[in-house]
Amino acid sequence: MIDYNKIISEYSPDKTEREKLKRISSGIIDKINLICKNENINAFPVEVGSVSKKTNLKCSDIDIFITFDKKYSKEFIEKKGVEIGHKILNNGVEKYAEHPYVSGTVDNIKVDIVPAFKINKGEKIISTVDRTPLHTEYVNENTDEMKIKDILLLKIFMKTVNVYGSEVSKSGFSGYLCELLIIKYGCFDNVIKKFAGLKGKLIVPEDKTLEKKFEEPVIIIDPVDPTRNAGAAVSIENLSRMKIASKLFISGIDVFNLKNNEMNKINKINRGTIIKVFSLKKPDIIDDIIYPQAVRLKNKIWEIMYRNGFIPLSWEIDIEHDIEILIECERDTIPLVSVHMGPPAESDESLKFINVWKNNKRLIRGPYILNDRLYVDIRNKYVKFEDVFNNEIKSMDIGKNIDNLKNDIKICDVDENIPMNVVNKFYLKSLFND
Amino acid sequence: MIDYNKIISEYSPDKTEREKLKRISSGIIDKINLICKNENINAFPVEVGSVSKKTNLKCSDIDIFITFDKKYSKEFIEKKGVEIGHKILNNGVEKYAEHPYVSGTVDNIKVDIVPAFKINKGEKIISTVDRTPLHTEYVNENTDEMKIKDILLLKIFMKTVNVYGSEVSKSGFSGYLCELLIIKYGCFDNVIKKFAGLKGKLIVPEDKTLEKKFEEPVIIIDPVDPTRNAGAAVSIENLSRMKIASKLFISGIDVFNLKNNEMNKINKINRGTIIKVFSLKKPDIIDDIIYPQAVRLKNKIWEIMYRNGFIPLSWEIDIEHDIEILIECERDTIPLVSVHMGPPAESDESLKFINVWKNNKRLIRGPYILNDRLYVDIRNKYVKFEDVFNNEIKSMDIGKNIDNLKNDIKICDVDENIPMNVVNKFYLKSLFND
Repeated sequence: MIDYNKIISEYSPDKTEREKLKRISSGIIDKINLICKNENINAFPVEVGSVSKKTNLKCSDIDIFITFDKKYSKEFIEKKGVEIGHKILNNGVEKYAEHPYVSGTVDNIKVDIVPAFKINKGEKIISTVDRTPLHTEYVNENTDEMKIKDILLLKIFMKTVNVYGSEVSKSGFSGYLCELLIIKYGCFDNVIKKFAGLKGKLIVPEDKTLEKKFEEPVIIIDPVDPTRNAGAAVSIENLSRMKIASKLFISGIDVFNLKNNEMNKINKINRGTIIKVFSLKKPDIIDDIIYPQAVRLKNKIWEIMYRNGFIPLSWEIDIEHDIEILIECERDTIPLVSVHMGPPAESDESLKFINVWKNNKRLIRGPYILNDRLYVDIRNKYVKFEDVFNNEIKSMDIGKNIDNLKNDIKICDVDENIPMNVVNKFYLKSLFND
Repeated sequence: MIDYNKIISEYSPDKTEREKLKRISSGIIDKINLICKNENINAFPVEVGSVSKKTNLKCSDIDIFITFDKKYSKEFIEKKGVEIGHKILNNGVEKYAEHPYVSGTVDNIKVDIVPAFKINKGEKIISTVDRTPLHTEYVNENTDEMKIKDILLLKIFMKTVNVYGSEVSKSGFSGYLCELLIIKYGCFDNVIKKFAGLKGKLIVPEDKTLEKKFEEPVIIIDPVDPTRNAGAAVSIENLSRMKIASKLFISGIDVFNLKNNEMNKINKINRGTIIKVFSLKKPDIIDDIIYPQAVRLKNKIWEIMYRNGFIPLSWEIDIEHDIEILIECERDTIPLVSVHMGPPAESDESLKFINVWKNNKRLIRGPYILNDRLYVDIRNKYVKFEDVFNNEIKSMDIGKNIDNLKNDIKICDVDENIPMNVVNKFYLKSLFND
């Protein structure tokens, strides 16, 4: 039997950490209240995020929202929010999500101070962050000590199998989704049972008609806004991983200790393929914006390889330092000749096809007839991948932050010993390592 | 304007040749009549084939059938037919089609003497050769001097574009089909117009319901036996060639002189591919039986190449001397690794798949998840084509005459200078060279 309490205590903050977090957030809230009173601003600080819901694991951040009365303008609350943030966090820097906000540290704890509008339940939100205080309220109203333990356990489970985290490059389950799942299914074991037996999409509440409304693989209606799919960010791979992990757990495998398990053995052997890494310097923009462009670039390279016969096999992306895209393909040189299919012999285009090709310098053989059609064997313009790529990448639209960098893409052939994140990722790929 | 008469006189026998043929066939017929009379056999010699219909080109053979009364047994007419044949052709050798027959030469003219049953119009035939005298009768009754000229022209046209000849390795139009086409459409120009504008199958008479009865691309109902498709042997390639050749002719190109035309230029340049020739000694069996087995062997080799990732591009077959099969492929070595798709993560088979592969020696990477499925990267058992081929050919059924020879198949990699028929065919392939 797995001792859930032992796992929870291993990953959760101890009393000292908890008291420290409480002390810091209370201090910040008091300061913000004082500033608002002094400046006669109708705004209230509110702690949000996992700490405020007691569902935080070790080393959590503190998130404090300043909720302004709706009478203020967007411009005002952004300006005033950042101003207050800087007053409180003397090492704070301005960051941008939908709004600007201030991020800094207090006693080595990361603190974000974010301006938002104060929205009451059922009211329409103005910016997406306005929902967050309502999430905190909902979770606090619907959890107790038992459920909080199971939320922690589910978070730990998801971290272990690498499906936890809502950043775009992860596309996993957020903390809020873990909370909603425990609230819905009652306890950790029920959530695992649900995933282990799940066919197709995860839909909460279990209403098949939602499948028509939302196309994502995980559909979890946000209780504070029934028009929103809180599970929209979860990828099909991470849903599949949770299905497998849950099946393994139910079959008796100690998934919590999987990292030490033989299933993650590394096999850095020669694969007899061509492995290319495309790298470019990461622009100074947040990862959630860069990552989708890196995926788009990967898709373009894959498509060029596929269409030109280099036979791509697998890929990896890493954007921790540079943008690194690895693509493994079966070859980097194609034959000189391509078999090019023409129209059916009976078609009105057939004589035109013959005339076009018979004097073409690229003609190697033909025109000839196979079955009911004309064919020619023609010379490929480029046979080396680098030449094909350089020719095609020029005219490709990747995304506004990468487009002007695309001429600086470096391509290198790698062996298994090159020290790049993306190469390690590639060789380490396993069930719960992606 | 093309001078049809000049073309006809160039390819048809002159007066001397015609008289010689007449003299030889009359002599043979007289001799057979005498033998039958002396031996009191109810059988009559009849000249068949193009010479008997005056539709013969230069250097034609003479075909004499001995038509026996139906009261005789198959065994009797075979024995007696061969006996008479040998009496007449002192250099004759026995050959086998449906029946045995005797083939020899008289004054350097090839002569076949073939036993058959005498069948009247509308009566059921006993062996397929029994039809031939009826064909001769039908053509002679339905042609005149004008039509005979156009039959000769059509035969010459078809020879020029390489679609003439009913042997299996050619799968072209027989002389009888040329005769039927001129009888049906009235003249050479009409036949060419028909092919030039034809979409889909050639059907004579033009009755769409015949398409359901016969699956071949050319359906020409035999006037002497409405249940038989006289066009069954014509391949889709040869029908397509006739469509193209007719379009070219109508567009003003002198197809009769095409062989000197620039369209048949040879391009023996390096193609950057692997060209392999599979050769084996031809068994002492007629080509019409060997050729389909050679095609079957080619299809098996192609299928092995395709399924194992060697990417076959094109092929040729030649059985003039040895059985030679050429297959061009993009490579003869595949990567060490294959991406092997497993079941969906949610399937009941998923844990079994993980367990089967995790300790398998062929596992290189994984299991891992892509989209909603499990995958593993596994080591290929063989990476060289020769190894794959030798492993697979053992258990393959090619055909009774080749099966016991398949271990003697020689494989060689060729360049453009190797002096083999099949290699020349490959490099010379063009519209009317196959």
